[in-house]
Amino acid sequence: MNNIIYENERIDEIGFKNLKLIQNPDEFCYGIDAVILADFAKVKSKGKVIDLGTGTGIIPIILSHKTLAKEIWGIEIQKTSYERALRNLKLNNLEDRIKIINKDVKELSDLGKFDVVVTNPPYMKSYGGLKNKNISKSIARHESTASLNDFIKIASNILKDKGDFYMVHRPNRLVDICYACRQSNLEPKELRLVSPNKNMGPNIILIHCVKYGKAELKFLDPLYVYEENGNYTSEIINIYER
Amino acid sequence: MNNIIYENERIDEIGFKNLKLIQNPDEFCYGIDAVILADFAKVKSKGKVIDLGTGTGIIPIILSHKTLAKEIWGIEIQKTSYERALRNLKLNNLEDRIKIINKDVKELSDLGKFDVVVTNPPYMKSYGGLKNKNISKSIARHESTASLNDFIKIASNILKDKGDFYMVHRPNRLVDICYACRQSNLEPKELRLVSPNKNMGPNIILIHCVKYGKAELKFLDPLYVYEENGNYTSEIINIYER
Repeated sequence: MNNIIYENERIDEIGFKNLKLIQNPDEFCYGIDAVILADFAKVKSKGKVIDLGTGTGIIPIILSHKTLAKEIWGIEIQKTSYERALRNLKLNNLEDRIKIINKDVKELSDLGKFDVVVTNPPYMKSYGGLKNKNISKSIARHESTASLNDFIKIASNILKDKGDFYMVHRPNRLVDICYACRQSNLEPKELRLVSPNKNMGPNIILIHCVKYGKAELKFLDPLYVYEENGNYTSEIINIYER
Repeated sequence: MNNIIYENERIDEIGFKNLKLIQNPDEFCYGIDAVILADFAKVKSKGKVIDLGTGTGIIPIILSHKTLAKEIWGIEIQKTSYERALRNLKLNNLEDRIKIINKDVKELSDLGKFDVVVTNPPYMKSYGGLKNKNISKSIARHESTASLNDFIKIASNILKDKGDFYMVHRPNRLVDICYACRQSNLEPKELRLVSPNKNMGPNIILIHCVKYGKAELKFLDPLYVYEENGNYTSEIINIYER
């Protein structure tokens, strides 16, 4: 197993019984956003799910643990992340369960229709100005190669009718999300606000849309990440353990 | 003053120092929604504001107390509510400060542009099926004479550029609101969720849009109506007192 890690990389224990993840701390590392999204997304047994912009494969890997999905796909544009994702599958013995492809989400085709699409897309708008000097981090964080609208349109294109779309994003983009989703026939049905703790406003949102769903939004109970003493809440601990 | 009240009507003390309101308990009576909207809406001194679907005039009357607005208008389609609103102006000596007109919002014209538009529109969609048998209540509660989209389009039409639109509505309509507002160039800038108490999810939303505003939504701190002991929270008490 020695050759599974390259220079500057490390193997993190990520919970979920004994899953592991190779990451390079100099590049984009997964956050709690990916973890709560993978818990929020419901995939039926025998379901077919894809993660758009999968990075090093964190969401497909968690979904393989939490669901009985029959087909789990991930797509990632960045070669280094893709290649690291492949090693993550090997590290966790998930090469039979998960398929990762190295492509621009905008070029996705020929995989048939999906029951579920999940995505933790870049959160920030792409402006001409200063971006992260680290190209890998910049692509993961900014809408440089694909915009929010692109992710939503693609999700709608590859979903079956009544299929489910789950996304994690930032509260300041909620209107952009609602507008783009409805334009693409992905009707927002459930919204969950995620706050660092009970005294702070939301800094993450989880949204569940249904393709051609009826217009009616439900606010789910808020999710708090930390107790006042700084420990994880029991709900977050459960998410990492189950 | 005896002839100011008709059969089945009563005069309610509504707070805000010593404002009063004639209401008919058999018809639609104002709720806390109108009160918190009138507090949420900011009108600059010398500003010109209109309330779309003003009912018996509760929002203009509170705005006359809370703001230094130069022109305060209300428009109401229902003859009986309009007529009661006129008596409410008389009762509170506000006939010089507030103008109420008896018109369908869709026929509004010739009043020039406004700095601020507020509305507490009917919350429920209009379906062909059963509605409230009481026609007055039904019009106040259902989108029978004007839809949510109508209210938003009209608000945009009569607002100055960069003018403010404040609306109170239900959380399950948030996507409808975001979508229709952006389509009408009213960009949602602030969202405040209102819950009965800290243990319950939101049942009211307050939304502030700016005409041709930049796309960026801010979640304001939630507003709780009741303490756990059932008393109003201090914030609600302040809203009624200031």
